Amino acid sequence: MGNNIAVFRKEHFNAAHRLHNAALSDEENAAIFGRCNYPNYHGHNYEVIVKVTGEVNPQTGYVIDLKSLSELIRQEIIERFDHKNLNLDTEEFKHLNPTAENIAMVIHGILRKKIDNRYELKITLYETERNYVEYPA
Amino acid sequence: MGNNIAVFRKEHFNAAHRLHNAALSDEENAAIFGRCNYPNYHGHNYEVIVKVTGEVNPQTGYVIDLKSLSELIRQEIIERFDHKNLNLDTEEFKHLNPTAENIAMVIHGILRKKIDNRYELKITLYETERNYVEYPA
Amino acid sequence: MGNNIAVFRKEHFNAAHRLHNAALSDEENAAIFGRCNYPNYHGHNYEVIVKVTGEVNPQTGYVIDLKSLSELIRQEIIERFDHKNLNLDTEEFKHLNPTAENIAMVIHGILRKKIDNRYELKITLYETERNYVEYPA
Amino acid sequence: MGNNIAVFRKEHFNAAHRLHNAALSDEENAAIFGRCNYPNYHGHNYEVIVKVTGEVNPQTGYVIDLKSLSELIRQEIIERFDHKNLNLDTEEFKHLNPTAENIAMVIHGILRKKIDNRYELKITLYETERNYVEYPA
Amino acid sequence: MGNNIAVFRKEHFNAAHRLHNAALSDEENAAIFGRCNYPNYHGHNYEVIVKVTGEVNPQTGYVIDLKSLSELIRQEIIERFDHKNLNLDTEEFKHLNPTAENIAMVIHGILRKKIDNRYELKITLYETERNYVEYPA
Amino acid sequence: MGNNIAVFRKEHFNAAHRLHNAALSDEENAAIFGRCNYPNYHGHNYEVIVKVTGEVNPQTGYVIDLKSLSELIRQEIIERFDHKNLNLDTEEFKHLNPTAENIAMVIHGILRKKIDNRYELKITLYETERNYVEYPA
Repeated sequence: MGNNIAVFRKEHFNAAHRLHNAALSDEENAAIFGRCNYPNYHGHNYEVIVKVTGEVNPQTGYVIDLKSLSELIRQEIIERFDHKNLNLDTEEFKHLNPTAENIAMVIHGILRKKIDNRYELKITLYETERNYVEYPA
Repeated sequence: MGNNIAVFRKEHFNAAHRLHNAALSDEENAAIFGRCNYPNYHGHNYEVIVKVTGEVNPQTGYVIDLKSLSELIRQEIIERFDHKNLNLDTEEFKHLNPTAENIAMVIHGILRKKIDNRYELKITLYETERNYVEYPA
Repeated sequence: MGNNIAVFRKEHFNAAHRLHNAALSDEENAAIFGRCNYPNYHGHNYEVIVKVTGEVNPQTGYVIDLKSLSELIRQEIIERFDHKNLNLDTEEFKHLNPTAENIAMVIHGILRKKIDNRYELKITLYETERNYVEYPA
Repeated sequence: MGNNIAVFRKEHFNAAHRLHNAALSDEENAAIFGRCNYPNYHGHNYEVIVKVTGEVNPQTGYVIDLKSLSELIRQEIIERFDHKNLNLDTEEFKHLNPTAENIAMVIHGILRKKIDNRYELKITLYETERNYVEYPA
Repeated sequence: MGNNIAVFRKEHFNAAHRLHNAALSDEENAAIFGRCNYPNYHGHNYEVIVKVTGEVNPQTGYVIDLKSLSELIRQEIIERFDHKNLNLDTEEFKHLNPTAENIAMVIHGILRKKIDNRYELKITLYETERNYVEYPA
Repeated sequence: MGNNIAVFRKEHFNAAHRLHNAALSDEENAAIFGRCNYPNYHGHNYEVIVKVTGEVNPQTGYVIDLKSLSELIRQEIIERFDHKNLNLDTEEFKHLNPTAENIAMVIHGILRKKIDNRYELKITLYETERNYVEYPA
């Protein structure tokens, strides 16, 4: 890892979702997902933290420009998911259950293509203050 | 006010909503409410703070038992709104636009009937960490 | 109120306590105070916010020097209560039930004598992030 | 006050400042302001909360559109003070000591002219998590 | 690690404790533990974060059901320690000094037996907002 | 790593800084650093978290005494940087651009000499709530 350092940028979006697996019966969905399966959706203030790890550029003193990273997150993630119904309004979750785990993995997949491979990338997603996930672990 | 003291209890619920006034055209709704008017709903982690003001009971040292207040908020507010779509699933917002202002006033109306009139009651509702309301002012 | 402005300073102390009224039977205490009446004490990270309201001194631009206010709170409140058992180690709560309400009123009484009467004084005391009190209301 | 409700919007800016009263000697400034008087400035992440109180508009369910309020705060306050040296770069604090009290009063003065007088206006300014002010009290 | 993802659940309990090693003299205990050794206990609002790492179950989109994890933490940890005196009321700390380090290791030991070994487990314990520990490192 | 556990202590300081590389032209500096390059400095409430990893001392139940660690951070870091202009008032940043990355690496270098090598050391530095860095990664 040499002299690697990690930088973090936190952004947020507000979205509706419902946990549901179309391959299961309604009874199975209700048993597994409980209140999160209610048919008319509920929602969250999602907080997303993007961690980028690499070496410091000696000219700038930056690993990566956090203003550019913030702009990238806004274009690629916030514009896509903010004030949306994840199940109905997004391509990503039309056939994928929008659990926090799956949302974090989708965000990682989208940003991984836009961030140079010399950087490591990790996503933390808060669904509530008390429930959150980190990918990759 | 004599020797009055205020006690506060904070609870939370997660819900979907959409800002929309059925008396207005779609264009007017979009112009007024912007992203909050998107048709398929979005959602929030709502934080609700209930403030009860009164005199301290000398026998208990309490204004009001916060465990009972917490239980009351859970029964009357959290059960009603948590993991619900405010526009579709609740009587209160079938014909009332679920802005933070209106949600706070509805919560105040529900709890006011359940809390003795010798206490003053105030509701603070956080829609996000940066947007919140207080009723009555 | 003219041109009044309020300044706030937040400090904290960690203490053990138990809610108990010696004038009541053990059964009554258990019924009223529940887990908070357990005989061997429990504890909290208390956060205390001192609000001082007055006019701005044109020479300093201060209502009151917050460094001095912080020092006063440390001497009078933190030294007295920090890392103490409120029921056993303090004069104030030997015969007074250490509810959040009573602790806030005691703190107000102690500081009121030390702060010039041209200032208004209000105490907010957090027992937990979700339970707190404000005196006077 | 009738049926008044308060809405709050929180924004932030990062600035350098130094507490200094040019009418006092260097010794007096050092004695009064301590570390805050150091000649080469220090800085803060300021959090500003704008509270607007009024009646709910029955057509919108809003007291005031918080997106517009946020935009107003950005134009009038954040653009003016963010990433600035308050003492050197701003008209407001060239001859006024940039204490939290004075900053809050200046922000109130700027926004008061831009917000209809049927609304009450209050400013809370956090200089640090533990030091903050509210104007008017 | 393949496609591992971590999920986190945060819970809290309030307890009294005192740092003391019975194998040392009173003078040694006072010298090592300072205010934390005061004889009549003090207390904290402990925040415990349980991190579980594993693969996502494709049927549920969960690593593990956070509602079940929350319920497990409540049964095994919160019921055991909440509103207790750790030194006097618990088997775990009758002969073990209840430092944050030891509490985190005890919680890890209790939960490790209840969570399938295909999951990695890590405990973070906040004693105060500014002091916390993580086990295993 | 055997039975290693990590302990964390959080402290804070307030400082002014400006991002600028003297080897670049003014136009290049403005292009790279934007508002952070403004000539008269701006500032932040920096939060620094020091993570120390090692084995628990069976006599104390501590990895390291957090009161001593806090005292060390205050002497070596807070005294050096608090209420200072990082560019003008400190030896460390006279010729090194005070980005969050560089500040974290400097803090790591200072503390690494003062903490026994049997402990691992990691620094997290928050420049704002939404921008922070961790070294080593």
